[in-house]
Order: sequence, then structure tokens, then C-alpha cells
Amino acid sequence: MHSETNQTLFLIMEQRTELSALGEFGLIKHLTEGLEMKNESTLLGPCDDCAVLDYNGKLTLVSTDAMAEGVHFDMVYTPLKHLGYKAAVSNFSDIYAMNGSPKQITVALSVSNRYSVEAIEQLYEGIKLACEKYGVDIVGGDTTSSTSGMVITITVIGQGEKDSVVRRNGAKENDLICVTGDLGGAYAGLLVLQREKATWLADPNMQPDLDTYDYVLERQLKPEAQKWLVDWLEENHIVPTSMIDISDGLASEVLHICKQSRKGCEIYMDKLPIDYQTERILEEFKIPAQTGALNGGEDYEILFTVSQKDYPKIKDKENIHIIGYITDEASGCKLVTPQNTTMDIKAQGFNHYSDTVKKAEQ
Amino acid sequence: MHSETNQTLFLIMEQRTELSALGEFGLIKHLTEGLEMKNESTLLGPCDDCAVLDYNGKLTLVSTDAMAEGVHFDMVYTPLKHLGYKAAVSNFSDIYAMNGSPKQITVALSVSNRYSVEAIEQLYEGIKLACEKYGVDIVGGDTTSSTSGMVITITVIGQGEKDSVVRRNGAKENDLICVTGDLGGAYAGLLVLQREKATWLADPNMQPDLDTYDYVLERQLKPEAQKWLVDWLEENHIVPTSMIDISDGLASEVLHICKQSRKGCEIYMDKLPIDYQTERILEEFKIPAQTGALNGGEDYEILFTVSQKDYPKIKDKENIHIIGYITDEASGCKLVTPQNTTMDIKAQGFNHYSDTVKKAEQ
Repeated sequence: MHSETNQTLFLIMEQRTELSALGEFGLIKHLTEGLEMKNESTLLGPCDDCAVLDYNGKLTLVSTDAMAEGVHFDMVYTPLKHLGYKAAVSNFSDIYAMNGSPKQITVALSVSNRYSVEAIEQLYEGIKLACEKYGVDIVGGDTTSSTSGMVITITVIGQGEKDSVVRRNGAKENDLICVTGDLGGAYAGLLVLQREKATWLADPNMQPDLDTYDYVLERQLKPEAQKWLVDWLEENHIVPTSMIDISDGLASEVLHICKQSRKGCEIYMDKLPIDYQTERILEEFKIPAQTGALNGGEDYEILFTVSQKDYPKIKDKENIHIIGYITDEASGCKLVTPQNTTMDIKAQGFNHYSDTVKKAEQ
Repeated sequence: MHSETNQTLFLIMEQRTELSALGEFGLIKHLTEGLEMKNESTLLGPCDDCAVLDYNGKLTLVSTDAMAEGVHFDMVYTPLKHLGYKAAVSNFSDIYAMNGSPKQITVALSVSNRYSVEAIEQLYEGIKLACEKYGVDIVGGDTTSSTSGMVITITVIGQGEKDSVVRRNGAKENDLICVTGDLGGAYAGLLVLQREKATWLADPNMQPDLDTYDYVLERQLKPEAQKWLVDWLEENHIVPTSMIDISDGLASEVLHICKQSRKGCEIYMDKLPIDYQTERILEEFKIPAQTGALNGGEDYEILFTVSQKDYPKIKDKENIHIIGYITDEASGCKLVTPQNTTMDIKAQGFNHYSDTVKKAEQ
């Protein structure tokens, strides 16, 4: 130990790979590659929405997410209560995305002295409100100061049944690809907020007029998780073959499911569910609505696949949209236009180590 | 939602309480006060080392800890591999402190672009090494960029038996107060490192000569958790009446146990276990060894109380020291000097929102 300390005490790193070279997903994958699981109770390690633990028969699901100021949120336009709500809900979403129920969370806050106690209380109010609504307990936490900004890390623990916890890797050929709600709204909301910030920085006396943007602002600032879906699937005895929540854009999530299931897919562009307000606002920003729906992040809707046999149960269900089907791996992941031409689906999801918005706007 | 967004969009906080007014412990207590637990599986929320969940009979323990650059560690003298090791071990310590076994962790890293992938790999190597040594699985995680510095948040999940999970609140009158290992070493190591940093800043060509400081440096940079104690207690059929790990200094932890158990105590100053190197180094810094042992943090030893009936089993056990006994609440928490005078025990533990070292040196 001692010589090691001396050697590394004033450490100079000789080799240097920039974080941006790997990106956020690349980095976590890189770091957790080849990890060996030693405990019998660890059924699944880091490769899905949640880890799966088997503690005496029932399955325990665990997921951790961190959000950092200046990266995941901008204090200029993020009310703290909403921020807390969103931080909690986005974690619940990870448990629903495995067809489980969130039960407990721990909350770690790292905040600079720039924040007052009242500010942190507001943040916590939002977390509590979300927990109240979704029936989740706050069972622990930690607060530390930081030299600048704020980082919120939430770990969620949930429960699932052995025969109905759904992973990303179970999609079969000909399965229907379904998505809840509508897409691109949270991204449209972000664009509006960023524009308002720019206007406000130019003229702080300007009063924002956001009356016609309420839906997309709510999608961005106070998203909800899809508890109803997990309840409805159980009531209707449907176990999807794969599931994932849409936090980084539909395109990115479809590719995750296909890659982990070793399958291909066809997604029909004109089946993508897009709210009329989202469409109008994306138009203002000269972004094709389908591009926003495919690549915009943070909608926290659920993407899932079901066997064709479940079609009768699912076809008329409000809020569930069938957008395509699973093909074989060799066929690749394709987007089919209304003109019946096809193109490869590419992930342009959020990469917080590079210029997020520019990338998503391309 | 919409009008609320408008109102808070460019939020001005009218009331402002500085974070330093509450301190780190005050803040988390303040934030979690009065939280109601809704799930049957939540046996214990945030008021101990870990939350306690009951998932089908066995108890699941959960704890989250965050460490922030510039607050909990200084990159000038903290090798990244050691930092990772320490971050993991300090979390395991929370599970051992409830007489449980850590089984899984999730790791959330928030890092600025200042760090290279190689640097983060080194950090992760340390986490993996600790997991390897203690038989723990890394089951999930998240990495996000941050605008500056690094925050490491680890959540640990562990298991315990219903009849042997030990909380802070069970100490009974006349129970023996015991502590593992020795105290003040990690604090002495921190003082040495801070002095080296000051010297190095004054003359970067200076080569540190740390040969005679190896023990305290290891205590600070690469601490261990007390797995052996949990194993030994089980083998010897001893269930402590209360337990806590020493992360913020013995005085602070003794007060936690007494407060939560509604008891008082007498601690004998000359029974405090202090390594000779720790004593010598604290002397260099003109700090009485007992002050360092009482108030120095990060030793990750375990403080626990046992019934007098366990005295025969415990009295000759290497590495366990009996330092006092529990009294009634009205008698207060007292420190007894070799001259048989008594004084009140006061917590001068680490408060990261104010000037840590100064406070501990007083």
C-alpha cells in the first residue's frame, strides 16, 4: 500500500481518452463490461432498466439514476418542485419498464452553498409529491455539499413477480411493437424553454407568454410514469415479450430491444403517436414531427413488444399504439415512410457528453 | 400546472436559510422528518444506517452515500483507485453496522470532462477490488457529466436475518460499550496528506517522504469495513443491543446511540484504542490523541453495545475493546478522565458545510 500511495500520490495520467469519445452509454457499458456476479440473489446485473435480485422467491428490482445541473436541467427554467417530481418519476419509470412496481427510493443530493434550505425543501416537496402519487416510500438518503451546482441521485427499489418481470431481450419475430401515449412532447417543451431563456437573457423584463405551450411544458417539466400500463397488463393477463422506457428517444430504445433480442424491426412512420401541439411547436422550430418523435428524449412512455396472440386485447386500448413489428436480425431495423420507402433507424438519443440539442435537431 | 409553471419559471426565492445553518445531518433530518411509509415491505425508513425492507421474510437493507470532490476528497492526494475502494467500503460499512451482509451495489458517477476515461477506469478498478474482497456484486449504475468536479453515489443492498438485524436504538442500561480496531488513524492520515499538499503547492519539486506514515495513510486512503465482526458475532451467537459504524467520529456516534436508545453513558478516556503511530502523528500536530480518537472521522470501525451476559465471550477477543457502559438517560453522556473527573461528550464530528478540519482540531 505504502509504495503505491507514494507512486500515485501526485498522479499524472499519461494516457488520456476524452469522455466524449465513449459517450454516456459507452462509458457505463465500458465500465461494467465483464463484471462477474457472485451472489446467488443477483439474477441480473447492469444491462437492463433495473437489476433483478431474488430475495426469497419474489424479485427485487433496483435502479439508480443521477441528474446533474447544467446537464440534465437548467435552473433558469426548471422550478425546483418540478425537478424533484421529475427526478423521482423518471426512476419509477425504470421499474415500470420491467413490468414491476416501485416501492422504495433513496435520495442522494449533492448541492452547493448557492442553494438555500428553502430551495432544497421545494425540491424535496416535488419528490414527496411523486412518491405520494405513485405509492412509493422514501427510505433513505444522503446530502452532501458540492463545490458547484447540484446532482440528484435516486435509487429505486421495486417488486416484480417471477413470471412477469419483463426484460429487453425477449422480443420474438412477428411480435407487435407498441408504444404508450405520445412522443416528442418533452423535447418540444425543452425547445420552448430554451428559446424563452434566450429571450429572457436578452431582455429580463420580458414576460414569457406560454399559454399555448402548456402541454409540452408539462411533458418536459412534470412528466408521468406509466403505472397504468403495468396495472392494465396484469388485469388483462398480458406479459409483454420485451419492455423499455423511452428516456432517450424512441429510435434509441427500439435499437436496444432489437440488439438485446437479436432481432430486426419495421417501424411505420405514420403510426408514430404525436400530439397536435407537439407537432405545431416542432414545426415552429422547423423540425419534422417524426424526427422529434423518434429522437426526442424524456417522454417516459413505454415501448414494448407483445405476441400476435395478444392483438385482440390490445388493438382498441386507448393510449397504446401499435407502431410496427419485429423481424429477423438480418433484416435490420427499418423505418417505413408513408411512401413505402425504408431507411435504417439510427439512434440520435441524448448524449450528455456532447452537444445534445444540436444532435437531436440534425 | 400551467399557471404554476409561469409563476415559478423565473423563480426568486424570498426566504433564504443558508445550508450551513442546518449542516449536513440537520439537512437530511429536516428533509425526511415526518415522512410516512406506505408499503408493508418498508419496515424502517431513513433514521438508521440503512433502511430495512421485508421482502418475503428475509430483511433487505438499503443505504445510499454520496462523496463529492472538494468536500469528501481532494484529488491532489487521493489516488482514484483508492477513492473507488473507499467509496465502496464505506457503503458496505453501513450494512455491517446493522449486523447484515452487503450483497449488491449500484454506482452513480457524476464527472466533469476534466476526467479521462482512464481516470474513471482507475476509480472503477478500486470499486471492483472492494467488491471482490467483500463478495459484493455491482448490479447497476449511471454515469452523467457534471459542470465541475466529481460526485460518487453508491447505494448498497444487503441481507440480514429478522432476529439479528441490529439498530441504533436498542441499548439497555448497564450494557457494555464496545468498539473494534483503533481510532483516530484516518484523521491523522488526513492531517499528514493536507500538510504534504501545502508543502507540495509551495514547492512542486519536493518529493514527499511518507515512509513513517504508512499506517495512518492507509487508514485514510484505503479503509476496511468490519465484515469479520459480523461473522464473529454470528459464530459466537452474540446479537448486540445496538450498533453503528464510526464514520463521523466516536463522540458523534455514541451520542446517536444514546439519543436513539434514550440512555446515557460513561466512556473511559484511557480505554480508547489508539495506535502508537496515530498517537505520535497527532502529537506532531499538537492534538491530544484522545481528541483525535473521539472526533476524527472515517475510521469505519464499529461501535456497539452488548448485554453484560456476553462479557465472558467478548472480554478477550482481539480487536474488540470495551470502552464504557450505558447508564440512564438522566445521567447524560459522560467522558471519564484517568483522574476520574467527568465531562459531557460533545459531537464535533465532520460537518462538510463548515470548516471541517478547524472544527475537529479545536
